[in-house]
Amino acid sequence: MLEGIPSGLALAHPDIDADLKRRQQGYGRGGRMKIEQDRAIILTGVRWGKTIGSPVSLLIENRDWENWCEGMSPDTAKEGSIPPVTRPRPGHADLAGAMKYGHKDVRNILERSSARETAARVAAGAIARKFLAEFGITVGSYVVRIGSVAMPEGPEDETAETVRRAETSEVRCPDKETSSRMIVLIDEARQKGDTLGGIFKVVADGIPAGLGSHIQWDRRLNSRLMAAISSIQAVKGVEIGLGFRAAERFGSEVMDEISYSEGSGFFRRTNNAGGVEGGISNGMPVIIRAAMKPIPTLRTPLRSTDIVTKQAIEAAYERSDTCAVPAAAVIAEAMAALCIADALLDKFGGDSMDETKRNFSAYQEQIRQF
Amino acid sequence: MLEGIPSGLALAHPDIDADLKRRQQGYGRGGRMKIEQDRAIILTGVRWGKTIGSPVSLLIENRDWENWCEGMSPDTAKEGSIPPVTRPRPGHADLAGAMKYGHKDVRNILERSSARETAARVAAGAIARKFLAEFGITVGSYVVRIGSVAMPEGPEDETAETVRRAETSEVRCPDKETSSRMIVLIDEARQKGDTLGGIFKVVADGIPAGLGSHIQWDRRLNSRLMAAISSIQAVKGVEIGLGFRAAERFGSEVMDEISYSEGSGFFRRTNNAGGVEGGISNGMPVIIRAAMKPIPTLRTPLRSTDIVTKQAIEAAYERSDTCAVPAAAVIAEAMAALCIADALLDKFGGDSMDETKRNFSAYQEQIRQF
Amino acid sequence: MLEGIPSGLALAHPDIDADLKRRQQGYGRGGRMKIEQDRAIILTGVRWGKTIGSPVSLLIENRDWENWCEGMSPDTAKEGSIPPVTRPRPGHADLAGAMKYGHKDVRNILERSSARETAARVAAGAIARKFLAEFGITVGSYVVRIGSVAMPEGPEDETAETVRRAETSEVRCPDKETSSRMIVLIDEARQKGDTLGGIFKVVADGIPAGLGSHIQWDRRLNSRLMAAISSIQAVKGVEIGLGFRAAERFGSEVMDEISYSEGSGFFRRTNNAGGVEGGISNGMPVIIRAAMKPIPTLRTPLRSTDIVTKQAIEAAYERSDTCAVPAAAVIAEAMAALCIADALLDKFGGDSMDETKRNFSAYQEQIRQF
Amino acid sequence: MLEGIPSGLALAHPDIDADLKRRQQGYGRGGRMKIEQDRAIILTGVRWGKTIGSPVSLLIENRDWENWCEGMSPDTAKEGSIPPVTRPRPGHADLAGAMKYGHKDVRNILERSSARETAARVAAGAIARKFLAEFGITVGSYVVRIGSVAMPEGPEDETAETVRRAETSEVRCPDKETSSRMIVLIDEARQKGDTLGGIFKVVADGIPAGLGSHIQWDRRLNSRLMAAISSIQAVKGVEIGLGFRAAERFGSEVMDEISYSEGSGFFRRTNNAGGVEGGISNGMPVIIRAAMKPIPTLRTPLRSTDIVTKQAIEAAYERSDTCAVPAAAVIAEAMAALCIADALLDKFGGDSMDETKRNFSAYQEQIRQF
Repeated sequence: MLEGIPSGLALAHPDIDADLKRRQQGYGRGGRMKIEQDRAIILTGVRWGKTIGSPVSLLIENRDWENWCEGMSPDTAKEGSIPPVTRPRPGHADLAGAMKYGHKDVRNILERSSARETAARVAAGAIARKFLAEFGITVGSYVVRIGSVAMPEGPEDETAETVRRAETSEVRCPDKETSSRMIVLIDEARQKGDTLGGIFKVVADGIPAGLGSHIQWDRRLNSRLMAAISSIQAVKGVEIGLGFRAAERFGSEVMDEISYSEGSGFFRRTNNAGGVEGGISNGMPVIIRAAMKPIPTLRTPLRSTDIVTKQAIEAAYERSDTCAVPAAAVIAEAMAALCIADALLDKFGGDSMDETKRNFSAYQEQIRQF
Repeated sequence: MLEGIPSGLALAHPDIDADLKRRQQGYGRGGRMKIEQDRAIILTGVRWGKTIGSPVSLLIENRDWENWCEGMSPDTAKEGSIPPVTRPRPGHADLAGAMKYGHKDVRNILERSSARETAARVAAGAIARKFLAEFGITVGSYVVRIGSVAMPEGPEDETAETVRRAETSEVRCPDKETSSRMIVLIDEARQKGDTLGGIFKVVADGIPAGLGSHIQWDRRLNSRLMAAISSIQAVKGVEIGLGFRAAERFGSEVMDEISYSEGSGFFRRTNNAGGVEGGISNGMPVIIRAAMKPIPTLRTPLRSTDIVTKQAIEAAYERSDTCAVPAAAVIAEAMAALCIADALLDKFGGDSMDETKRNFSAYQEQIRQF
Repeated sequence: MLEGIPSGLALAHPDIDADLKRRQQGYGRGGRMKIEQDRAIILTGVRWGKTIGSPVSLLIENRDWENWCEGMSPDTAKEGSIPPVTRPRPGHADLAGAMKYGHKDVRNILERSSARETAARVAAGAIARKFLAEFGITVGSYVVRIGSVAMPEGPEDETAETVRRAETSEVRCPDKETSSRMIVLIDEARQKGDTLGGIFKVVADGIPAGLGSHIQWDRRLNSRLMAAISSIQAVKGVEIGLGFRAAERFGSEVMDEISYSEGSGFFRRTNNAGGVEGGISNGMPVIIRAAMKPIPTLRTPLRSTDIVTKQAIEAAYERSDTCAVPAAAVIAEAMAALCIADALLDKFGGDSMDETKRNFSAYQEQIRQF
Repeated sequence: MLEGIPSGLALAHPDIDADLKRRQQGYGRGGRMKIEQDRAIILTGVRWGKTIGSPVSLLIENRDWENWCEGMSPDTAKEGSIPPVTRPRPGHADLAGAMKYGHKDVRNILERSSARETAARVAAGAIARKFLAEFGITVGSYVVRIGSVAMPEGPEDETAETVRRAETSEVRCPDKETSSRMIVLIDEARQKGDTLGGIFKVVADGIPAGLGSHIQWDRRLNSRLMAAISSIQAVKGVEIGLGFRAAERFGSEVMDEISYSEGSGFFRRTNNAGGVEGGISNGMPVIIRAAMKPIPTLRTPLRSTDIVTKQAIEAAYERSDTCAVPAAAVIAEAMAALCIADALLDKFGGDSMDETKRNFSAYQEQIRQF
């Protein structure tokens, strides 16, 4: 459910389904993804192809659902229809969740903590992306590392063209040769019953200077973006711009000097800051880089402890993927888009697309003449 | 101003002043820090040495204040008493802030975006640390890299003993030899009129399994911590546990297998997750690692553009530090402590320390018997 | 969708359906209510009859839905399948909403602003009521006035017994003779094509002293309750305890003197405050009284102005009720229950019913010994 | 502290002091108000007479403060310097607060729950009023009842002229003859050691159609206003427009029919709705009416129970007023102004007054042409 989109935005389920499909793709996915393609049913908030201002609610049916009608039924009568899961998987919410909520069946935790939930995020993000496109803002992503295989990186890769190239790679990597090596590594991991993580980038282009704010810690655009991206399952690190590499250099090597030209106003020749300075977008592309740990469900199981018997056992195995980094990149696009749309509406307000766009354009003129 | 601390917490201004002093220390600070030591005046919320449940408000006077009585006065009559700053500094909020808020004097942005604001965060964080100590939770920090100089890292450094050693280092680095080299590098940078960033760690120990939640993206403890830490000025990257290094390994090398013993219940022999799995604390120490870019105000100025004349010029120079990584580590402790205290109160509620501790203890017994 | 209910609460769809039915009842409802009874489908958050800690999401199908498949379809292809509504109804969101969101078809506003939305509130409220019942807290309601017909009121009517009697009245009025006169008045209004409003009370019993707080304006229990109740469609006034009548008396006639007995601890012999003092529940029943204006959709239409032609016309007529005060009372119960459950969880925390109840009981013991 | 005011609003402390003075006035105030006049010191957010976009923080010194240096000191050494208050006053937060927070000295509750806190609200509200004035929105108030003395009411009294007249009355009542009778009643109450409450109105004029929203319960303008007003100490009832009187009439007598003229667009000849329909402002003045109970601190004390000895005693007497209804009206103006400013910024966004006004004007043109 998504609240706050102004009225008058053209929206149809294929806009959303396209992103849902992108989330399901990527070399390294297991059988779950092959069941059938996700589709969003628009329940509310859209009429005759346009948003009407009320909350947009979507329903994405789980094609796997019928296998769980009894096991996950709300109905008391189905109690015990499947055996409890008592072998928590390291790296998941399983054990901590069971202790927190007082469950003796880890399934009560694992279904909700599953990355399946990210389908909803991608669907909402697709709407945010459609909304941002009306303001000339695009959000794309690509994969730069899977396990030990990485592509060369640098400012030259942070372009729309790179994002476009990534769309055709089975691993969302814009570099063909690296893509091939990533696929080989994934095959190797799958054969061993092991899993892989990796690193992806999100590039948001077209954001005007002035989103977010320096005035309070929780209004900083970078902080809001990092919260959003780090909330994706298995993400263990997030950077903006140079990120950790900025820590190694002298100040004179890191800052993006400020230039000006009649035509384009203020601009930078470099983008080490990743498009955010002092918590505020500076007009350059926003560049986020995030690390995903390997998927914690291994076919060759890890050692764990049964929560009932307290015996050392092997962790449960739920059908799972070998590598989901390409999907995580798509989810991160969605989270970034939601975050940027939110900051944009904070600044420009508006209840109809006409109004929000009018406010946006007038501000663009203001900063052009600054 | 800090709302939500239960009544009955012992609190006096020295508790706060000690942390304010830690923030002001660190080799590499400029003249500003030498003016005089910050002190917190407790205005409300504490009576006769104990919190009473109402918001705790603090006043930290700026010893530098009298120099700005006219230049930053609210009074219209003082208009023009100091000349405007029109040369925005790359790497600061200066330019984007001026455009956003429509200012032709960058000083209207730079005073608020100054890291001076973090004194308030440290003061609030000191209260949170005092609160957490009542539950056996400690939050410490240390510096592992300044510019090109880094200490060897590994799980062995993430201990209370390391934190203790860092307290005696001028650069908050627990490794003596590395400390010396860091100081040499800072001297070198200062001589060049350049600046340095670095990397620090925060270690929060004693957190029980069960803070945060997997059920919604914005309730994940890791995401809340990363938002808090990344909101600190100049922080460009944040990791939990292995962070980016997790992306390079196989799944079998990353997960923390689950062990059990009669005495200590469930535990892990490794802590690659950094104390959070699936958005929930798992009972192991929470380990955060963050990168700070070099301070963007250089004595040997960067090139910029005057916002009035549009001429290429050198950026303004406001008195500044050469390196503030040790201070950033102290600020990060504060932000982490506030964040953990918040999550703890979410879970345990309570309006008096007696009540919150009673709820906490009963839960500890619950998970001991899990 | 309801977030925050601890795990382990017994919950099944009949618990919810019973309240949905109560909302649909009441003398004075139009044809819409007769279509079929609302039923809640539990989509998530409940397994085998118990909540599991994740958000509870419900789907209530609209039995009238198939008549609107085309007219309210998200599909562009259906555009124009029904004519626009251009005659805004006075007393509704129609005109202000159309102006705000930039619509030339008032239907884009009226479907969302419809009190149909309150079915979701009642469903969520039913869960809150089930939750509160575990703590011995009950929330009930009854009608004391419809149009010019009112029952005698006083502290003696604010009891559980009165609430019980109201359940058997077609107009939710506990007084038989008044009920009959209300029905006569409703019949009269219906014949004239007119509508009626009224006044109802909500009684929440069993709330311990200590919910809400005096420390900040937005944490006051009375203020949170009044926001919740006044958000119900057509509610134009809300009181707690004596309400407006308190303004007419001397202070010595209004305050509830504080008594004490060994057995029951502190108590009051009167409840003019309506259970809240200084923003905090005081252990007495919480008594809310609210006024609902007549339904603004009249069969004998009001005069209005066409938003396209700007001609004076008669307002549109959408099938509607003559009087919905009994339903509003049920909705108010739900809003009050949600509000109280929220305040209870603020104070007691907890992720499982066992934990929340344990914290609650220990506090009850604390105040018993106060 | 007030966050969110755009940069560029002209603001000086006399703007605030004027309202602080209005709060302190009113026939029926006790000695406390006579100590000295409140003054606001602007600490941050304003430079050279204009806001700069960062939070505006104010300090209002309590002239009575020096009498409490020891009794309310944060310093442990002062413990016991004044005796505890153990006799809770009926009608205050005293007893419920002491139980909630676990205090054996009611003073720990009563200082924070004191209406002294409303000085801060009025100061913040004064800024909001200054802000709204830039958009042609005014917020005023007057008293219509004190105890048993009431002035005749009707739509004719809800005008700017009435508000102006109230400013010159010692009891904020626009009707001269009623004012005199109110003063007589206050004198009578004071002689008896008793107290009085009353009813006041707030009139907000110039609000365009379109603030607030019907789409979610917590975005309704009426609900937000009622929460804000009901959070004022001693307020027990709030109405919008006809309020409770709407419950007594037929629908045909309550709705405000919609008219249109070339010059002024859509308008209403009546304003029974009080300026809000379906949760959205409709362009008519917003009319709020609220009831304040008598001040619960009586010189002729009420009966209570000592919280330590459990003996029946007389309630403590803290220096207090006989009647504070005129002050409450001023506080309600402030809360309404803050609430409307918030809703205005939600809709129009903007970080500088130029930007917010530009967005506002363009919308005004939009609805003029609707």
